[in-house]
Amino acid sequence: MRPGMPDAALQRLAEAAAAMPVEERVCLPAGFAAGAAAIGIKPSGRPDLAVVVVTTPEPASATGLFTRNLVAAAPVRLSRAHLAASGGRVRALAITAGSANAATGPEGDADEEEISGALAAAAACPPAEVVRASTGLIGPRLPVPRVVAGIGGLVPDRVARDDAALEAVARAMMTTDTRVKAATATVDAGSGGGWRSVRVSGIVKGVGMIHPGMATMIAIVLTDAPVAPATLSALLPPAVALSFDQLTVDGDTSTNDTVLVLASGAAGGDEILPGTTDAESVAVAIAAVCRSLARQQAADGEGATCRIACRATGAACLDDARAVSRAVVRSTLFKAAVHGRDPNWGRVAAAVGAAARPDGTPVAVDVASLRIALCGTPVFAGRPLAFDVAAVRGAMEAPEVTVDVDLGLGEAAAEAWGCDLTEAYVRENAEYST
Amino acid sequence: MRPGMPDAALQRLAEAAAAMPVEERVCLPAGFAAGAAAIGIKPSGRPDLAVVVVTTPEPASATGLFTRNLVAAAPVRLSRAHLAASGGRVRALAITAGSANAATGPEGDADEEEISGALAAAAACPPAEVVRASTGLIGPRLPVPRVVAGIGGLVPDRVARDDAALEAVARAMMTTDTRVKAATATVDAGSGGGWRSVRVSGIVKGVGMIHPGMATMIAIVLTDAPVAPATLSALLPPAVALSFDQLTVDGDTSTNDTVLVLASGAAGGDEILPGTTDAESVAVAIAAVCRSLARQQAADGEGATCRIACRATGAACLDDARAVSRAVVRSTLFKAAVHGRDPNWGRVAAAVGAAARPDGTPVAVDVASLRIALCGTPVFAGRPLAFDVAAVRGAMEAPEVTVDVDLGLGEAAAEAWGCDLTEAYVRENAEYST
Repeated sequence: MRPGMPDAALQRLAEAAAAMPVEERVCLPAGFAAGAAAIGIKPSGRPDLAVVVVTTPEPASATGLFTRNLVAAAPVRLSRAHLAASGGRVRALAITAGSANAATGPEGDADEEEISGALAAAAACPPAEVVRASTGLIGPRLPVPRVVAGIGGLVPDRVARDDAALEAVARAMMTTDTRVKAATATVDAGSGGGWRSVRVSGIVKGVGMIHPGMATMIAIVLTDAPVAPATLSALLPPAVALSFDQLTVDGDTSTNDTVLVLASGAAGGDEILPGTTDAESVAVAIAAVCRSLARQQAADGEGATCRIACRATGAACLDDARAVSRAVVRSTLFKAAVHGRDPNWGRVAAAVGAAARPDGTPVAVDVASLRIALCGTPVFAGRPLAFDVAAVRGAMEAPEVTVDVDLGLGEAAAEAWGCDLTEAYVRENAEYST
Repeated sequence: MRPGMPDAALQRLAEAAAAMPVEERVCLPAGFAAGAAAIGIKPSGRPDLAVVVVTTPEPASATGLFTRNLVAAAPVRLSRAHLAASGGRVRALAITAGSANAATGPEGDADEEEISGALAAAAACPPAEVVRASTGLIGPRLPVPRVVAGIGGLVPDRVARDDAALEAVARAMMTTDTRVKAATATVDAGSGGGWRSVRVSGIVKGVGMIHPGMATMIAIVLTDAPVAPATLSALLPPAVALSFDQLTVDGDTSTNDTVLVLASGAAGGDEILPGTTDAESVAVAIAAVCRSLARQQAADGEGATCRIACRATGAACLDDARAVSRAVVRSTLFKAAVHGRDPNWGRVAAAVGAAARPDGTPVAVDVASLRIALCGTPVFAGRPLAFDVAAVRGAMEAPEVTVDVDLGLGEAAAEAWGCDLTEAYVRENAEYST
C-alpha cells in the first residue's frame, strides 16, 4: 500500500497512532443504524447478513480500499465501481458471510447487481450509494433470493441506532473468527466550527487468508466526523499501510479484502478541512483504530495461541523497516518455534537476511550491526549472546511474543503483527470447504 | 535466479530435462572418492561429517551457487571466496551437519579457515581448492577440533571410490530428511574427441527452511565430464532456475543454501566446449538431475504426506509462469487443503490472483480465461465447473497431487513443487533447537 505521504510523516503518524488510547469495544457513532439476520448461508445457522444504514439527511462520505488480488470478488468489483460513480457517497452497506462470491464468473456479478439493487430500493437511495462486502468460501454463489428477502426484512424497519446493533454486524460477518474485534477512539475536534467530540469506531473480521497487501478481511470504520469524501480518501491509505498491510496470518492474500470508512457528519459543526489540526486528529484516530483492529486480528489468527509483534528499528529506510518486520512475523519456521515457546532466534536472523523490498531488491542488512531481542532479552548482537533460555521461554508464554530487530543502519522503524503456527491451524484448514 | 539465457531457450531446456530418463539412485562418477564419519555434532550420534576428494591428477572444474540470504553462513562465504580465488578448481569438499555455522560472528569465519586448512593439508592441495558446506541449527559454533580430527581420519586413507561411499555422504548431510535423495543421468557424448559415456550424479539434503531463491539445502552434483570451469559455470544457473528455485516447503530461505557441481574429466576425451552438442547433452543432464533432486525434496518435505506439483501454462511470459506455479505450491491454505484431500480450488485461484513477478508487479491474470485442473480434473474455467468431488478426493490420495493452471494468455509454461502442510510439520518445528 503506497500511503501517499512522505516516510517521515508516516512514521510520525505511526507513533501518534500507537500512543492514542483506543478501547477494544463496539460503539456505533451518531448518524448510523445497523442490523443483522440469519438467512442460512452459514451451515451453522448463525447470523450471516448485516446492514449498516446512514440516517443523516445526506449520505455519508465514504472511501474504501480493496484487495489487490486479481481474482477480485464480485462484491469488491461492485463496491469499487459504486464508490467511483457516487463520488464517495454511501447510504447503505450490506455484508454477507459464509460465501465470498469470488471466482463465480459473470453470474456472480449479476447476483451483486440484484442484491445492491434490492438494498437501494429498501434504503430509498440511488444504486450507486450502496456498497457490498462478502466473505467465506471461494466458488459458491450466494442464495440471492434469501439475501434480497433478508435485506427487505431489515431495512428500513429493523435496524437500530445502538452499540448492540453494530456488535450484531460484527458477529454476523465472522467466519473462522472466534471473537468480536472492535476498536473505538474519541477525539476532541475544537478548531473550525466550535468544540465537538468525534468518534471513530471500527469492526473487523478475518483471521485466515491474511497477508499484507491487504490482509483478508472486512473492516468497517464508522465516524460521525463531518469530512468530505476527498478528505476521507486521503486519510485511509496511511492508516491501512500502518495496520492491515503489516499483518500476516498465513501469507495468503484473499480475493475479498475490503476496508470501508463511512463518515456521517452527525457530530455536527463545520466540515473538517484537510491540513487542519482537526483533520490531523481524525487521521490519527482512524490510524489508531485500524492498528488496534489489526492487532486483534493477529491475536485471533486461525489456530493461534499468541500474537507475535515485531518492531524493526535502525533501518536504512522505511521500506526496509516495514519489510523486515513483516518477514519476521511471516516466517513459517519462526511461527512454529514460537508455538513451541522455543527462543530459536536463528530463524529470525534467517528471515531478516532474506527480506526484500516491494520491488524485490534485498533489504539492507549488515550482520555485524544486527541486534535481535526476544521478549525484551537481547539474544544476538553481531554474534550470539549468552542468555537465560528458561527465562525467555517463560516470557514467551505471554499472550504477545515481542521481537525487536535493530538493523543498526539508520533511523527508520516499523512494526508488524502475526501469530504462532499451530496444529490447530492445519486441522482447521485441512477441511474447510467440506 | 537469473538463468543467463533467453526465456525460449530456458523453456526448451526445461522440456528436455523433464524428458530425460533419470534414476533415483546414488552413483559415484569416475574421478572421485568419498567418505563419512560420526564426530558428535548430531545429538543422535549419526554420521555428521562427509568428504569428497577428487582423484584425478588435476583438480576438478567446479562451480557453485549459494544462498542470497544476507545472513549467509560462514561456510558459504568461504566457498564463494575459494571458488573465486582458485578460478573454479576444487580438490576436496567437506560437509558438516547438525550445526549451520551461521550467525556465529567472526569466530565462525575463523573456524572455517581452520577446518578448510586441515582439509587442504590432508588432501595435499592449496587451501583455495577446498570448499565447505554445513547445515543444521543457526547460532551454535562447530566443534572445530573434532571436525579437524575427523577430516584427518578420513583423508586420504579412508575414502572409497564406490557408490556406497557417496551414499554415506548423502546420509551424513541429512538433518530432518527422512531418506537419501539422489539422481543419476547418463549421456553419450560423441562429438569432439570420440565417443564416451558421461555420468552426472547428484545428492541433496534439505526438507525444511526451503524456499525459492534458493531452497535451503546442500546439493552436490558430480560428473566425470571433461569441462572447463567457465563452461560449467554457465550450465548451473539455468539448471537451478528450473529446479531448486521452483521448490518451496515452507517459504523460509536458509542461510546455508549451497549447490556445488564438480567435474573430474575422468570420462576421458577432449574437453567439451561450449556450444557443442556434447555441452548441450551435459547441460540437459545437469538440469534433469537437479529437477529430480528438487522433486524428491518436495516429497520428503518436513511432515509432508504428499508432493504438490503445479504446472502453469498459457502465461504471458516466463516470469509469470514461474511466479504462478510457485505461488500455488507456496499457498499455506492450499497446502493445508491438500493435506485434508480437500479439492478447494478457490485457494488456487486466490494464490494465482495474488502472484507477483520478481519486481513485485502483479502477474498478468484474466479470470475469464483462467482454467484450473486438480489431479487432471477441470474444476474452473472462467467460472466454477461441476465435478465429481469424491473422485478428485480419491485422486488426491496419490503420492503426488497435480495442479494445472492455464492462464490462457500466452505460450509460456513452468512447473514448481511443494508439499502438503501437516500437523507433523508444526510439531517437528515447534521444538527443533531444544
